[in-house]
Amino acid sequence: MPIRVLVYGLGPIGASVARQLVARKGFALVGAVDTDHEKVGLDVAQVIGHERRLKVRVTNDAVGGIRQAKPDVVVMCTSSSLRKALPCIETVLKLRTPIVSTTEELSYPVGRNRTLARAIDQMAKKSKVAVLGTGVNPGFAMDALPVMLSGACERVESVRVDRVQDARIRRLPFQQKIGAGLTVDQFAAKVKDGSVRHVGLAESITMIARALGWRLNEITDEIQPKVAKVPVESDLLAVDPGYVCGIVQDGVGYRKGQPVITLHMEAYLGAPESYDTVTIEGLPRIVQRIEGGLHGDIATASIAVNAVPQVLRVAPGLRTMIDMPIVSYAG
Amino acid sequence: MPIRVLVYGLGPIGASVARQLVARKGFALVGAVDTDHEKVGLDVAQVIGHERRLKVRVTNDAVGGIRQAKPDVVVMCTSSSLRKALPCIETVLKLRTPIVSTTEELSYPVGRNRTLARAIDQMAKKSKVAVLGTGVNPGFAMDALPVMLSGACERVESVRVDRVQDARIRRLPFQQKIGAGLTVDQFAAKVKDGSVRHVGLAESITMIARALGWRLNEITDEIQPKVAKVPVESDLLAVDPGYVCGIVQDGVGYRKGQPVITLHMEAYLGAPESYDTVTIEGLPRIVQRIEGGLHGDIATASIAVNAVPQVLRVAPGLRTMIDMPIVSYAG
Repeated sequence: MPIRVLVYGLGPIGASVARQLVARKGFALVGAVDTDHEKVGLDVAQVIGHERRLKVRVTNDAVGGIRQAKPDVVVMCTSSSLRKALPCIETVLKLRTPIVSTTEELSYPVGRNRTLARAIDQMAKKSKVAVLGTGVNPGFAMDALPVMLSGACERVESVRVDRVQDARIRRLPFQQKIGAGLTVDQFAAKVKDGSVRHVGLAESITMIARALGWRLNEITDEIQPKVAKVPVESDLLAVDPGYVCGIVQDGVGYRKGQPVITLHMEAYLGAPESYDTVTIEGLPRIVQRIEGGLHGDIATASIAVNAVPQVLRVAPGLRTMIDMPIVSYAG
Repeated sequence: MPIRVLVYGLGPIGASVARQLVARKGFALVGAVDTDHEKVGLDVAQVIGHERRLKVRVTNDAVGGIRQAKPDVVVMCTSSSLRKALPCIETVLKLRTPIVSTTEELSYPVGRNRTLARAIDQMAKKSKVAVLGTGVNPGFAMDALPVMLSGACERVESVRVDRVQDARIRRLPFQQKIGAGLTVDQFAAKVKDGSVRHVGLAESITMIARALGWRLNEITDEIQPKVAKVPVESDLLAVDPGYVCGIVQDGVGYRKGQPVITLHMEAYLGAPESYDTVTIEGLPRIVQRIEGGLHGDIATASIAVNAVPQVLRVAPGLRTMIDMPIVSYAG
């Protein structure tokens, strides 16, 4: 019997999740919730670009949609912000349905989000279901994967992850999210208002530190513009020299005043190569590289779908990628 | 409070585990069992090459040693063969003590070992403790790591792992185990009697297949000699051209008659570079490389030690690396 899944949120990631659920064996897309009035009422096939009708109508009534579809699991792709996702999470948990969410701030809640996470954990336990926040980043490339690699070490002094992506292959909202095409001043303003940033470095750093048993005394998260030196263009955007072509973001975790976890991201139009590397200074020293890097959207949707069978098996409560079995491809 | 660990088996891996337990925070080496009469009665420091006495005497009486030391966990490094390790495992489980074992055939029991594994699982559940078989290979480089990477894929067609090691940096018994210095005929005879081989390819292939939900119809495991073309030597051995300098071993798992899991190992004196690579054909295609490779002995001992805190947390029974949380460095 396929696992019945409802997708909550049909933005680019949610649509990608829905397409996978339709295409892959072992899963059935049984419901779709979105608040966008241009999507509500349509057959979900029209929203996700599937050729044949799927006989699943998009609704903005989450409670009604879940009651009718009776999903085994809800995959939620609504917001990066835990505070914003919280009402949706509450709604689903009240209906005793497990959740896999791509909400970045749910991957390993930090700071003020820890209070919200505790509430979610309690709700989930009360409803006897599990909740997982995951994705490629946070959730995999810059946290669970280096954590896994550290298992081969008898001593770890520091962990560094570099994630460099040529943004030309990503969708337009992503290219805009990294500030491509802006002036340096516009970029700075958008960094200030929070609209240009990757969400998740503090979460990833905290996850690594917890796994390794390290107590951190400070976490920093800094954003710089990548400024084009030559004209660069994607299929979607053109950037002249002197304008911003993307983002450079550095998260650092300090232990006893020393930088022990360094997460370095570059995402810009025209990066000469894309890659993910993990470098663990320790014994043995580990230098690991994924050629071409893990594509953000595909990998996030894949990990969310692959986590669906796992979230049905694990203990109730708020789970993370480091306290549940490895999420593998679910064939 | 440090976790109290008894090491059962003080060969090269067990001694390395013991050294880590002494050196690392969070662990205490409280007992040591070995049947070698040259080790029995010595302070374990003399056996593992630690400068100060550790006030732990090596005993060949496992029951007495465990009763006296009251370890929280036993790390067992006695044999690659599950059949041979079984009596030791039974002894420890009867004393209700969890086990981390580097017994290769315990990592994911296949064939006739499945009957033994079921018995171990039942004993462990009866004693309310967990048992884990792990190490770098099997247990990590050629199974758990590719399984982890597959989580980023929406489609997996095949998994290939290449593990190439220059055996010059390994200890003498390892160099001998891979047949270095033998004639081709001597090598063939030792392959036939089972004394020259890597144990674990079938286990790793089965673990990957299980994680990915694949049913295999055949697993092959073939060994070839690597013959020196030029003189090669390590600090410990010299091999003339025409003699064997190491081993090439290929394990293949077939699904519907197609090779879908390929594990390729080369370990020989003079390999120009050492590395571990994982190649997943699918969407996305993943090409991952660990430069220099994971050193067999260090990584196996590290993973065994790092698994100690986990084995205390997981549900009773026989666990594997794919049904428990990620084993990370335990700092």
